[in-house]
This record gives sequence, C-alpha cells and structure tokens, in this order.
Amino acid sequence: MRDPSPPVYREIAEALRSAIASGELSDGDRVPGENDLMKRYGVARATARQALSVLINEGIVVAVRGSGVYVRTFRPLRRHGPRRLSRELWGGGRAIWQADTADRAFAADNITVRETAAPEHVARALDLPEQERVVVRRRRYLLDDRPMQLATSYLPAKLAAGTAIAEADTGPGGIYARLAELGHAPAHFTEEIRVRMPSPAEVEELALSAGTPVLDVMRTALTSDHRAVELNEMTLDGSAYILQYDFDA
Amino acid sequence: MRDPSPPVYREIAEALRSAIASGELSDGDRVPGENDLMKRYGVARATARQALSVLINEGIVVAVRGSGVYVRTFRPLRRHGPRRLSRELWGGGRAIWQADTADRAFAADNITVRETAAPEHVARALDLPEQERVVVRRRRYLLDDRPMQLATSYLPAKLAAGTAIAEADTGPGGIYARLAELGHAPAHFTEEIRVRMPSPAEVEELALSAGTPVLDVMRTALTSDHRAVELNEMTLDGSAYILQYDFDA
Repeated sequence: MRDPSPPVYREIAEALRSAIASGELSDGDRVPGENDLMKRYGVARATARQALSVLINEGIVVAVRGSGVYVRTFRPLRRHGPRRLSRELWGGGRAIWQADTADRAFAADNITVRETAAPEHVARALDLPEQERVVVRRRRYLLDDRPMQLATSYLPAKLAAGTAIAEADTGPGGIYARLAELGHAPAHFTEEIRVRMPSPAEVEELALSAGTPVLDVMRTALTSDHRAVELNEMTLDGSAYILQYDFDA
Repeated sequence: MRDPSPPVYREIAEALRSAIASGELSDGDRVPGENDLMKRYGVARATARQALSVLINEGIVVAVRGSGVYVRTFRPLRRHGPRRLSRELWGGGRAIWQADTADRAFAADNITVRETAAPEHVARALDLPEQERVVVRRRRYLLDDRPMQLATSYLPAKLAAGTAIAEADTGPGGIYARLAELGHAPAHFTEEIRVRMPSPAEVEELALSAGTPVLDVMRTALTSDHRAVELNEMTLDGSAYILQYDFDA
C-alpha cells in the first residue's frame, strides 16, 4: 500500500523518474542538479540530494564526479549462451568472446594461474574426491578498456597441470581448444545464473556505478561422456549484458 | 584503489561482512544492532546505522521492522529453462511452474486480461504489423504466499481473442496447451535476460527487501515453422531464483 502523502524527496524522485520513463529526459541527458531542484521545488539541499540519491541507487541515473548526474545509458552486450560456445568458434581458434563483440577491442588482464586443493563446491561440480588438486585460472575481461567481467576457471590438475591451460596465454581457441587436443573436448554445458548486489571489491574491480547489480554465471563444461572438465565462475557487470538462450520445447 | 584510511562505518561494515563470509554469522542469524555496535566500537548511533545500511543496500542482511537486522537467507527456486518448457509438461496438462516447485503451494493472482494495439517492441517481437491487436495477460505468481514474479504475455488477437487464452483461467496446461489445440504449438523458445534495480511499484508488488535486484526475462515462443506466437515479459525477484540452462557445444 502506498503511503498517502509521501515525503517531498520521493515526490521529486518520482517526477524525475517519470521524465525519464516518458523520454523527456533520455540516455545520457543531464538530470537537474541539486541547485536546480532547490530552486524548482523550493526545498533544502539535503532534500534535493536525497531525491537524486534515490534515483542513483535505482541505477537509472549515474553521478559523474565534478560534473553532474546523467540518465544512464543501457547499451548492453548480447551474450548468446549456445551460439558463443559452439564448437565452430573455439574449434576454429577464435576466442569465445568474439561471438558477441564482433570487432571491438577485447582484452583480458589481471591473469593469475595457480594450483590448489579443490574448494568443496568445486570438487562437487567437477565430481572430484575432496582435496583433489585443481588448476585455477583467474582473469578480468575488458571491452574497449571497460572492465566487464571477472572469471575464475577450475580444472582438474590431472588434466590441466603442465599444459598450456596452466600458462598465462592458453593459445588460439583458449582452454576449450586445448581440452579438445588433450581428448577432453567439451560437448555439453550447464549455466546457472543468479543475481545480487556486488561486494566493495567487485565494485572496484569492475568499476561499477551505484545501483548496479552483478550476474553470477556458473558454467560447467562436460565431455560427450558427461565428465565435468571445467567449472567457470563468472561475475558480470549487470548493466553491461543481455544474456540470451534458445531452446526447444 | 582503496582509500588508505576508510571511514569508520566502512570498517565496521567490513568486519560484519567478513563474519558473514566466514560463516561466523550464518543464514538467518541476528546481526549486532545499533546499540551493540555503538558499545563494541565506541561510535555514535549515526555511524552504527550507516554501517548497517551499507550491508542492507548490498542485500546481504535484511532489516525486519521492530525486530532487528538478520543475515539474508538465500534459498532460491531453481528455474530450469529447457526442462520446464518441455512439451511433456504442458502437453500433460501440468502448469509449467510445477517443474520447479514440486509440491509447494503455488498460485497466480492479480490476473487481468485485455486487448490492445501492440506496443512497438511487442509488434517487433511477434512480427506483427504496427497497431495490430494483441491479447495482454498480466498476472503475479506466488509461492507459499510469497510474491515471486510478475508476468505479462502478449499474443496476437487473431490467434487468442475469444479463446480460453483470453479467460482469467486458461485451463489445464495453460496458454501453451491452448495454443497447441489451436494448431500453434510452441516448438522453440528464446529467453533474453537482463538485470536491474526495481522500480518503487515493483518493490511494492513483489515485496522486495532493500538491496534486491530484479531479473527481466523476455521469452518468445515460436511454432515449428518459426512463427512467434507469444511474448512473455517476466520480472523476477532476484533473491528468489537461480536460472539454469543446458546446451550443447
């Protein structure tokens, strides 16, 4: 039930929200600032600030330090689950990502590779005995220099240790092409998706604006005889992606 | 880059966050309140409140009015894209939802059905001429009396008007079973997923806690000859769902 007389800052926020919904204010437009709102509505600075912070926390406007507040532009990357993981792509030596990004400048940084005992949920996903060794590849993906995604892959050390999979540069076609060469080609994938607000460390590493949730995508890659060969835990900037899946009835 | 000396409320928030991450505080546990934090850290009430509100906005704790603040319990519903839309399910007269909810008490309410000119994005998705008429079914889904999802289906009026699809109760197997009887059985589905913070109206209708994003799932149902027969725009409580998709390389 709606409060019969909402506080003034909520009324101001609602007026701005309507202006954005109607297109009166559109992508990238400057939103009236604190001074504008104080004059227009005859309110104190704290009230104007509170109205703006409601919209910032809803993620529909973005504050740019020393500049102002702007309507958020949502131009997401389409991430097509089945198509981007088709064998034609990694089989031909292309990075999976290229399926989505066409010819935009794509890069990975902060790459680390280490070997460790499998954490419990990883052992479960990969159907390994407890404490079995795994190779852990962590990296961050950027598109046009903008951080988009954090990814951590876990592979059984028995398969991956000492191979190109454990190198910083896995070579053309990446992990999946190397697995195929080793006789463990991925044939089936399961992706599980959940959504949540980011931790402060993720806000920093993905350079997220306020009011931006993240998508967790957990992918398990299985061979044709249904052995799990990789678990990839991805954390995606929720404002940067549309995920697409096609399937049959 | 991390600030070398973060404000005290952030340090307190980080200490509580670590306690939750380590399991020292676990699902449903009461988090120290303002009074506890004031005593323990020797800070003012405003500082204690600010520390708690950081965690509330991250969605990892939930404030219960007149009671306290608790570690959020994340026991999501698994929504298995391909499996739940298999023909065996709706073909046999079961509600799609049952694939995920087993025998929990599932209900739909706030059902409205109307006919209107197709909004532009609907006309595009259904490959209809502009202004063509569509039947619009809106409803809210609840599980164990908890609102979980808002859904709005659009179907060409030429197919659906005057049929059970335009009734409040569509009968056993729902829309898809009725479409099949009319010779338009869905054979292929596309789901597009994005994530965002909810609008105030959605916070109310889905009874969302602070720091809870929503998932938008746009599903298009196509016949075996690839005619689009339904667009379903769903808005899901992001704390209530894990989405799962399986596909082949």
